[in-house]
Amino acid sequence: MSDKPSVIRETDGDARKQARDLMHTAAHAALAVIDPENGFPSVSRVLIAMDTDGVPVILVSGLSSHTKALGKDPRASVLFGEPGKGDPLAHPRLTVRCATQRIDRQGEAHERIRGRFLDRHPKSQLYIDFPDFCFFRLVPLDASLNGGFGKAYILSSNDLMMP
Amino acid sequence: MSDKPSVIRETDGDARKQARDLMHTAAHAALAVIDPENGFPSVSRVLIAMDTDGVPVILVSGLSSHTKALGKDPRASVLFGEPGKGDPLAHPRLTVRCATQRIDRQGEAHERIRGRFLDRHPKSQLYIDFPDFCFFRLVPLDASLNGGFGKAYILSSNDLMMP
Repeated sequence: MSDKPSVIRETDGDARKQARDLMHTAAHAALAVIDPENGFPSVSRVLIAMDTDGVPVILVSGLSSHTKALGKDPRASVLFGEPGKGDPLAHPRLTVRCATQRIDRQGEAHERIRGRFLDRHPKSQLYIDFPDFCFFRLVPLDASLNGGFGKAYILSSNDLMMP
Repeated sequence: MSDKPSVIRETDGDARKQARDLMHTAAHAALAVIDPENGFPSVSRVLIAMDTDGVPVILVSGLSSHTKALGKDPRASVLFGEPGKGDPLAHPRLTVRCATQRIDRQGEAHERIRGRFLDRHPKSQLYIDFPDFCFFRLVPLDASLNGGFGKAYILSSNDLMMP
């Protein structure tokens, strides 16, 4: 995202708010990682909750391919925003590039994140304490917002922080 | 996807049909590529149509980051399947690893794919002939189907072909 073609608009308060709303209200998202076996990009659906500082968190099984991938390469990108009715590209969406951080089950962050995750996803109680499951924080590096046709923005991690 | 933990079920006719249905009825999907500038995975939303042989096709702008990425590295993966109401992970989804093929605007495939794309996305008429737009075929290599909790399958490209 280092090149800025002229189609990229100047980031303003409305764009920041739209991006934050997409990220902070999401119940799920598409997570892209690098498959460590062959370098292929890989994308899958994950449940999303939000840590107290506004950083998205995911709960994943150690058996899943994305968990294995993040163990080898912490780089990820996450697509937020669901298409509603009509043209899927007319609905806003946000791609956030993230540095992922695995949460130690014994650390103090785990209990806080577990509580917040349960609040948003009560049904995760069925598996949230399975021994192979763990949380990752998805710390935003930068983001690309597409607010609909012709409304493209590039945002910094600061732009995504809560005001 | 070369390792098969025991949680992977034996692929059967129902799994093949579910995977094909997810891929062939999709209007949009999440496309993951490798950013050629820094090796990061990148994910974005794309419109999907289907070529006559069942291979998914996308129409993308040359200005978009995924188009630039595919010009450097044709490997991609695509997430099909939309969550409906309730738990997002209870709804089936399919990750397809693909080798992408750029469609030459002068070749005979272009007119065929253009027609099929317009049939599924009539509003794309507004930009389908813009000079910087082009089609890619997303030729499936293999796929991972998650049909809901505990229903994981690995499928070959043959499994995804129309019966």
